[in-house]
Amino acid sequence: MIERLSAMRRKSRHCVLGMLLFLPVAAMAAQDVHDATTSLALLAMVLFLGKASSLVVRFGQPAVLGEMLMGLVLGNLHLLGIDWFEALRSDGHLAFVAELGVIILLFQIGLESDMNAMRKVGLRAFLVAVLGVTVPFSLGVWLVGPVFFPQGTLNAHLFLGAAMTATSVGITARVFQDMGVLAHPAAQIVLGAAVIDDVLGLIILAVVSAVVTTGSISVLGVVVIAGKALLFLTGALLLGQRFARRIGWFFSRINTGVGMKFTIAVCYGLFMAYLAQVIGLASIVGAFAAGLVLDEVVFRNYDDPAMVRDIRKVLQAAPEALRVRLERIMGYHATRHLEGLLLPVGHLTIPVFFVLTGFHVDLAVLADTNLVLTALVVILVAIISKMAAGLMAGPVNKWLVGAGMVPRGEVGLIFASVGQRLGVVDGAIFAVIVIMAMATTLVTPPALAWLLRRSG
Amino acid sequence: MIERLSAMRRKSRHCVLGMLLFLPVAAMAAQDVHDATTSLALLAMVLFLGKASSLVVRFGQPAVLGEMLMGLVLGNLHLLGIDWFEALRSDGHLAFVAELGVIILLFQIGLESDMNAMRKVGLRAFLVAVLGVTVPFSLGVWLVGPVFFPQGTLNAHLFLGAAMTATSVGITARVFQDMGVLAHPAAQIVLGAAVIDDVLGLIILAVVSAVVTTGSISVLGVVVIAGKALLFLTGALLLGQRFARRIGWFFSRINTGVGMKFTIAVCYGLFMAYLAQVIGLASIVGAFAAGLVLDEVVFRNYDDPAMVRDIRKVLQAAPEALRVRLERIMGYHATRHLEGLLLPVGHLTIPVFFVLTGFHVDLAVLADTNLVLTALVVILVAIISKMAAGLMAGPVNKWLVGAGMVPRGEVGLIFASVGQRLGVVDGAIFAVIVIMAMATTLVTPPALAWLLRRSG
Repeated sequence: MIERLSAMRRKSRHCVLGMLLFLPVAAMAAQDVHDATTSLALLAMVLFLGKASSLVVRFGQPAVLGEMLMGLVLGNLHLLGIDWFEALRSDGHLAFVAELGVIILLFQIGLESDMNAMRKVGLRAFLVAVLGVTVPFSLGVWLVGPVFFPQGTLNAHLFLGAAMTATSVGITARVFQDMGVLAHPAAQIVLGAAVIDDVLGLIILAVVSAVVTTGSISVLGVVVIAGKALLFLTGALLLGQRFARRIGWFFSRINTGVGMKFTIAVCYGLFMAYLAQVIGLASIVGAFAAGLVLDEVVFRNYDDPAMVRDIRKVLQAAPEALRVRLERIMGYHATRHLEGLLLPVGHLTIPVFFVLTGFHVDLAVLADTNLVLTALVVILVAIISKMAAGLMAGPVNKWLVGAGMVPRGEVGLIFASVGQRLGVVDGAIFAVIVIMAMATTLVTPPALAWLLRRSG
Repeated sequence: MIERLSAMRRKSRHCVLGMLLFLPVAAMAAQDVHDATTSLALLAMVLFLGKASSLVVRFGQPAVLGEMLMGLVLGNLHLLGIDWFEALRSDGHLAFVAELGVIILLFQIGLESDMNAMRKVGLRAFLVAVLGVTVPFSLGVWLVGPVFFPQGTLNAHLFLGAAMTATSVGITARVFQDMGVLAHPAAQIVLGAAVIDDVLGLIILAVVSAVVTTGSISVLGVVVIAGKALLFLTGALLLGQRFARRIGWFFSRINTGVGMKFTIAVCYGLFMAYLAQVIGLASIVGAFAAGLVLDEVVFRNYDDPAMVRDIRKVLQAAPEALRVRLERIMGYHATRHLEGLLLPVGHLTIPVFFVLTGFHVDLAVLADTNLVLTALVVILVAIISKMAAGLMAGPVNKWLVGAGMVPRGEVGLIFASVGQRLGVVDGAIFAVIVIMAMATTLVTPPALAWLLRRSG
């Protein structure tokens, strides 16, 4: 124990040393209007500190939590009179990288979500998802909102409710993967529900965003928006699936290199994100839909079938222990190549989104004791409402399913930042949502570990 | 032949169709002051069209040529009254991505360049490199410059000479690789010489840039700048090699994930680029030095030694035919992982640099017949001066070595754009340098193929 603590102390020292390394960069950037190269140095600083904060993984926490905490610290040092990092607040290039990052992330989540797997998990996952969306949304809009934020508009309450519906499929999947229970029936239901939850949540985001933008709520308007969102999604999915394959085939005539595959995929994601925004949906909805559509079938002309066959042959001949480890590395190329290609781009851009998200949390609002108490109640409601959804899971460990649905992660934060950009979510509600997203993300891994130990 | 032509016509139709797809994006972007999402759509357009232009690979040309030609077309459509793509000219976000791209490229070239391989190639490569730098530089500064650009300052002539010294190690290596003669002794000498040429060229760039910035030439000043460049490079290389390993070890204590490896490497590259600029060198010099320092030894703590052993075991057991193909894919992970990780980031950013470089070539200057004739003479001098360097290659095919040194590629363009940014290279000289870089890049692959066939 003492040894572990001293190791932690050494590691924190590393972090502090790392931060000191970048102080000249921050100081110079703060002084003058800076050029592109200085933005690149700030980018390096954000990536570096974001990665250094992955120290939280040692404590069983997801890396995303560390990035947010790092951003939170950097963004609130000015409260202590330290304004070294204020250059991050106004850097347009970094904001651009963050926007690219969140689009890449939702594109990745779309790629990870498999429509066929969704169908197999079936009715139970659907029921869990519907309950997991309606209960927190209703409680957020009509209970927590009016009671704790009476000064907020209905629009603000809508965003609070929407943020509470989120389930972070990325975090959930990673937690189950880390604990080696991905094949567990409860895990399967949670993953299926999280995917459906994502789609429902994104429709809610589209509806709520449009309601806020047009300034009024009419049943017809909601139906039109919901219809438009559903039409865009189904259109993007059904037409996209045909179109994507044609595009994939189309460009395989020019060349079938890995660069072509990567470029076609990324351009498709960015183009769909743009298209979604043009027709009035959030850009991330388009990126998610683009990710859902793309799979290895689209790029079958790009895979070398002989190589895939060779890899299978070697894997079958390999001894059992070797096979499991090699499958991970070679399966990457044989079937999941696209996700592997997106990974480095994700490493370059996604942390910027989360560090900047944490950066924009103003801890000064926590001086308000009422707000802190509110956050605690919101966290409680957020947990209980998702646990209730677990009751629909059928003959599996219902507690495990419920707990698996709890983390709001980046999806909840995206709702909050869309609301903030639209000018309806004020500092207090934003802070509460971020604290809620962080707390639910934080509380899940130890809770799941405890439940798994308890059920044996 | 007819079949091939009709296939080409079909492919050009694909390209035109692809361009039409993006017309709405371009038109909307041109109309209003656009936000980050629109910049992302423009990014998608540039990447898409850049990749579509890799059609030139079919004609035995390097992809970089296609990207430049595509940019050249897009940037000069306004001469025909078509201003759909003018939004690209002023987009700050894309300029940022281009800057990131050129830094990633030089970082990659640095990673590809191996200091040990350089030592082995030895004296001959060094002599070829020195002659391959001094002859074109002297001819550019004291013959081509004064004779054909008498209106230009000495500073402009210095940049012309500097741009003529470049050897594109990337293009050279790829041409030999495509033709399967990388192990050929002449190829080895060219690669070694190209690496040394890169270092010499970067020192020349630093010296010339500083001379232009300070506005005067004194022998002492040149010695100081050359000394500073050499000190930075040797310092970055010698101290960096120690420091990089410590940093690599340092952060392996937090975690040894692929994301940590990627982040540390990219941050190191960006930080060194920034550092080089802060002390007065070009940012790409720093990125190149950072790439030279980093190798798999720095990240040995990140490799799973058991996995590397497993892969070796499987490769040894595999049948001969299988082994060669699997080595390529698995060696990637076992030893060259970092370059593999940078590849997608390169695909996302580097084409932006080359498309925008082509975009900024103003074909209107070609209306000047004298300039066209000048370009032809400069191309001739550029080819002859590098062929002369091949005479130092010793008992190998001297013509092959000389021809291998001819392509100026992206390195020549970097010199030209640095000179343009400093305000000393005017439109005419810039256009001539770009035409020279494109022509020398274009002429090399068929010339090498012809020489290889001739020597058997």
